[in-house]
Amino acid sequence: MERLQRIRSCEIGDHTGERVRVAGWLHSVRRMGGINFLVLRDGWGIIQAVVEQEEALAPLLAAGAGVESVIAIEGTAAVAAQAPGGVELREPRIEVISAVMETPPVVLSKREIKASLTTQLDHAVIANRHPTRRAILRLGAVGMEAFRATLLAQGFTEIQTPKIVAAATESGANVFALDYFGRPAYLAQSPQLYKQIMVGVFERVFEVGPVFRAEPHDTTRHLNEYVSLDMEMGFIENHLPVMAVLRDVVANICAAFSERCAPELALLGVQLPVVQQPIPAIHFAEAQEVIYRLHGMDVRGEPDLSPQDERWLGEWAQQEYGSDFLFVTGYPTKKRAFYTAPDPRQPRYSNAFDLIFRGTELVSGGQRLHRYEDYLAVLAERELPEEPFAAYLEAFRYGMPPHGGFAIGLERLLMQLTGVPNIKLATLFPRDLNRLTP
Amino acid sequence: MERLQRIRSCEIGDHTGERVRVAGWLHSVRRMGGINFLVLRDGWGIIQAVVEQEEALAPLLAAGAGVESVIAIEGTAAVAAQAPGGVELREPRIEVISAVMETPPVVLSKREIKASLTTQLDHAVIANRHPTRRAILRLGAVGMEAFRATLLAQGFTEIQTPKIVAAATESGANVFALDYFGRPAYLAQSPQLYKQIMVGVFERVFEVGPVFRAEPHDTTRHLNEYVSLDMEMGFIENHLPVMAVLRDVVANICAAFSERCAPELALLGVQLPVVQQPIPAIHFAEAQEVIYRLHGMDVRGEPDLSPQDERWLGEWAQQEYGSDFLFVTGYPTKKRAFYTAPDPRQPRYSNAFDLIFRGTELVSGGQRLHRYEDYLAVLAERELPEEPFAAYLEAFRYGMPPHGGFAIGLERLLMQLTGVPNIKLATLFPRDLNRLTP
Repeated sequence: MERLQRIRSCEIGDHTGERVRVAGWLHSVRRMGGINFLVLRDGWGIIQAVVEQEEALAPLLAAGAGVESVIAIEGTAAVAAQAPGGVELREPRIEVISAVMETPPVVLSKREIKASLTTQLDHAVIANRHPTRRAILRLGAVGMEAFRATLLAQGFTEIQTPKIVAAATESGANVFALDYFGRPAYLAQSPQLYKQIMVGVFERVFEVGPVFRAEPHDTTRHLNEYVSLDMEMGFIENHLPVMAVLRDVVANICAAFSERCAPELALLGVQLPVVQQPIPAIHFAEAQEVIYRLHGMDVRGEPDLSPQDERWLGEWAQQEYGSDFLFVTGYPTKKRAFYTAPDPRQPRYSNAFDLIFRGTELVSGGQRLHRYEDYLAVLAERELPEEPFAAYLEAFRYGMPPHGGFAIGLERLLMQLTGVPNIKLATLFPRDLNRLTP
Repeated sequence: MERLQRIRSCEIGDHTGERVRVAGWLHSVRRMGGINFLVLRDGWGIIQAVVEQEEALAPLLAAGAGVESVIAIEGTAAVAAQAPGGVELREPRIEVISAVMETPPVVLSKREIKASLTTQLDHAVIANRHPTRRAILRLGAVGMEAFRATLLAQGFTEIQTPKIVAAATESGANVFALDYFGRPAYLAQSPQLYKQIMVGVFERVFEVGPVFRAEPHDTTRHLNEYVSLDMEMGFIENHLPVMAVLRDVVANICAAFSERCAPELALLGVQLPVVQQPIPAIHFAEAQEVIYRLHGMDVRGEPDLSPQDERWLGEWAQQEYGSDFLFVTGYPTKKRAFYTAPDPRQPRYSNAFDLIFRGTELVSGGQRLHRYEDYLAVLAERELPEEPFAAYLEAFRYGMPPHGGFAIGLERLLMQLTGVPNIKLATLFPRDLNRLTP
């Protein structure tokens, strides 16, 4: 007899009344009133099989196969309102592909993972199979794709820049040191300098890749290795076109989640934000005035916004505009990275911005300096040596247009959109101060 | 007067007869019979402006602006058969955005780069602006996109796995050592183990990301950091479905080049291969017989193919099938990585394959072991410790389906398709034994 072609769990609705074959992991077995319900999980979802004849379970019993065993089930697809997805398999024939006899270190069949954070992370290899974990990771994949699709449609070219670099240059952040054939080297803490250089080649570039931060703190919001969604674009007048592209990116990520990840959003209980067009924006100095006016806290003259300030501004954006998002523009030049372009009309403020989402900073970006002389001046002013920046400076020495860009931390975005309590739960295998495995 | 909206060089054909504004780099200036021809390069191509009145050049002269200066030109777009792209700008008005007064370290205006390889690599920041360099890098971007699009269409999920790892595990290849908060760590030499683990979560996964090889040789075919296009898929019977996906990936990359990169292919003089459906395949043992029969060299019983063997097989595939590509399957199990699945009918041969392109190996892949006991046995047999593989083994202990995958080195693919003589010319900023900058 010809074996049936395997279908995916998500395709079952197209096959009701037919005999089909599915394959995946034995997610759970429940016995109710003399009937057994097997739940099978494949890469796309779960599907239930109803076992009315005990002997159908014989292959499982013979192999001693428990949950997480890899199995195939042939059965008749039948509409069943109470089944997950509304279709179940009846009169199943079970085949064991790979038997698991031990209890997994994390229980995967419950609606939520009960294991401690440490256990989950220690056994992420297995915990990532849990539907809620998988949902977050799938959102991450769809988010990357929406980021790329938005930029490709706007004429951007993808780049992959070196992660091993000769000098720790961009900022004061700690970097990981490396032995490069006997020479010191470092892991790139961002593609910032390279993406700016590549504006000289393609004008509009983006990169999706790992960045490395040797920051020795263990918080719920930091990872030592994370995925950065970076873009940089040339021939702009100021920071506004960069903000417009960021708005499109965020809107398209939310749209992709909404269109393609409805089961994941439902499972995680995520309410997606509305992304207005344009996103409301307020100048840094005006933001400080708003805080003073509404909360009596005189932060005017402070060089940066505190987390409390951001929360207040998030509330204000909600009340004033009904918006979950708020751009704050014009952060004081001196507090931003050396390559930040000042506002030509009032140079103590910059053409840099942050995007605040529900009261927390989500993205940073802005216009950069583009004149060689301006770089020489700012490096001198900040007492930074020129030599480690030699390649970077070469780009400006031989002609660069006004340009700007932004960087989104993928895990930070996922954390803030899904509400997971710890950023370590927004990535596959987190790296932190104490964790190098799995 | 309202300033014109800037258009891209590639859009000029839609605007003939109109006054338009373009912006980019001053690529070259030529004087012919009293007329000046300015060539402007933007992120998409080049466009020529004809200057009949000397005074139109005044802004350039006043700023001392030479080649690579960033400029804007407003002019009337006119059909001109001899102009690049068939359209030129007449009666131009020039505006200098960023003046460059020094001669760039690499001449960009000639059809080919004359500078030595060392000079090109030392000044890659500028050399990458050359149209031929840019063409290769653009093919790389389009190649990544075609790889992803092919796999997304087949139900794969994108992953980003850690690059900092606790143990140097996968193979004997040298790895870069790292100081991770006082603990030893390493840079991942491939996502192999993680992508297999993630088959347990999503069944079908892919990754585009950097890999790191501390191999101390300086050849025309090796980089110490390169971009790997990795995929892994579950629920296969053998290696054949993996080869089928690889065939689609290679065919779609070539189709994307052909459809979207005609100017780049023309500039580089690249003749794309035809990718047959299916790509011809030959078993390893049979391949050795063919070599013996045609060339009298008795390589039967050798555990691997030599570069000469691959060249002969490339010729044979061309003669026998008219194919630039040939799959060789069934490489001896002992010579492949420990996770390689043997052919169940003759276990000394494996379910691993190489894809040979014009006589050189381009891609490796195959079916992997999937049973926990098989991994314990092979580690013992190869005298490898279990402990560094603890997380990896956990995946198999708790149920993994038969699976397999492949990895394509992006720069190797670009080198072989475009014929650049050195792989360092197929990446943005190469890392080799002696080179850590730019």
